[in-house]
Amino acid sequence: MKLTPIGITHSPHQQATGTPIQASLATGVEGTVEVFPEYAPGLRDLDGFERIWLVYWFDRTAPAQLVVTPYLDATPRGLFATRAPARPNPIGLSPVRLLGITGHCLRVADLDVLDNTPLLDIKPYVPRFDRFDVTRCGWLDAASARDGLADDRFEAGSKRKEK
Amino acid sequence: MKLTPIGITHSPHQQATGTPIQASLATGVEGTVEVFPEYAPGLRDLDGFERIWLVYWFDRTAPAQLVVTPYLDATPRGLFATRAPARPNPIGLSPVRLLGITGHCLRVADLDVLDNTPLLDIKPYVPRFDRFDVTRCGWLDAASARDGLADDRFEAGSKRKEK
Repeated sequence: MKLTPIGITHSPHQQATGTPIQASLATGVEGTVEVFPEYAPGLRDLDGFERIWLVYWFDRTAPAQLVVTPYLDATPRGLFATRAPARPNPIGLSPVRLLGITGHCLRVADLDVLDNTPLLDIKPYVPRFDRFDVTRCGWLDAASARDGLADDRFEAGSKRKEK
Repeated sequence: MKLTPIGITHSPHQQATGTPIQASLATGVEGTVEVFPEYAPGLRDLDGFERIWLVYWFDRTAPAQLVVTPYLDATPRGLFATRAPARPNPIGLSPVRLLGITGHCLRVADLDVLDNTPLLDIKPYVPRFDRFDVTRCGWLDAASARDGLADDRFEAGSKRKEK
């Protein structure tokens, strides 16, 4: 199970603090996804899709923590019941809006990914595959999105103590 | 970027041929996700969620092909405009239904994953993060799901010729 970056994300977010914690909370934030030229043939037909999944590597996150206090709650939760980045396999998913493709570069919006993040994959967002009505959403049912911005709690080397 | 399996999927699907190509096309198929005991503390609070993302490794897929003929179309398409498994980083995503948790084992439904697939991550499915209305869905707008079952075209060692 060997990963190879297929590209890199260029974003206005330089550090976790202040970065929107989800694409759906990053409305209007634009950036560029640079796919390395050798993978450009795989981008054919992608421009017809309005939204795409970016799959990437949280390269600046702290080591995995199996219990975390998520951004949207004050109670420690099991890691797999959260979207926190400090995971055994720190793989991120962001459903961003595709604005256009020029050569091997994608212009995207709703971008919640840090600048220079290694890209692992792109998949089309397909409502009939990805869009589900859900009635129970665990601890998140009671959580408000507040400002929806990250702080440094999951950053590598963070001094913040896990509460 | 080093991956560590955190568990394994037990499923009735023994081979690609006949396996539903998406969770949304696998309604009713049940199986078990065994999370290795050392990761069990991370499962706390997960039982409140109705649906979860399984992130896993396509361990029996053919080498990456940048242009593929997807199951739902007869025209070759750029790989990143498809959900085909033969990807540079063969990471799969399945939004399955969580039926219950017993110890470190999850009973799930809508399972489109092969038996014994290495699990990389579990994330809660959160409508306000993952559910988007999309008006343009590329080549898939014209595709019907037909039977929605895979064949062996992306299996390692497949004799099927890419058309």
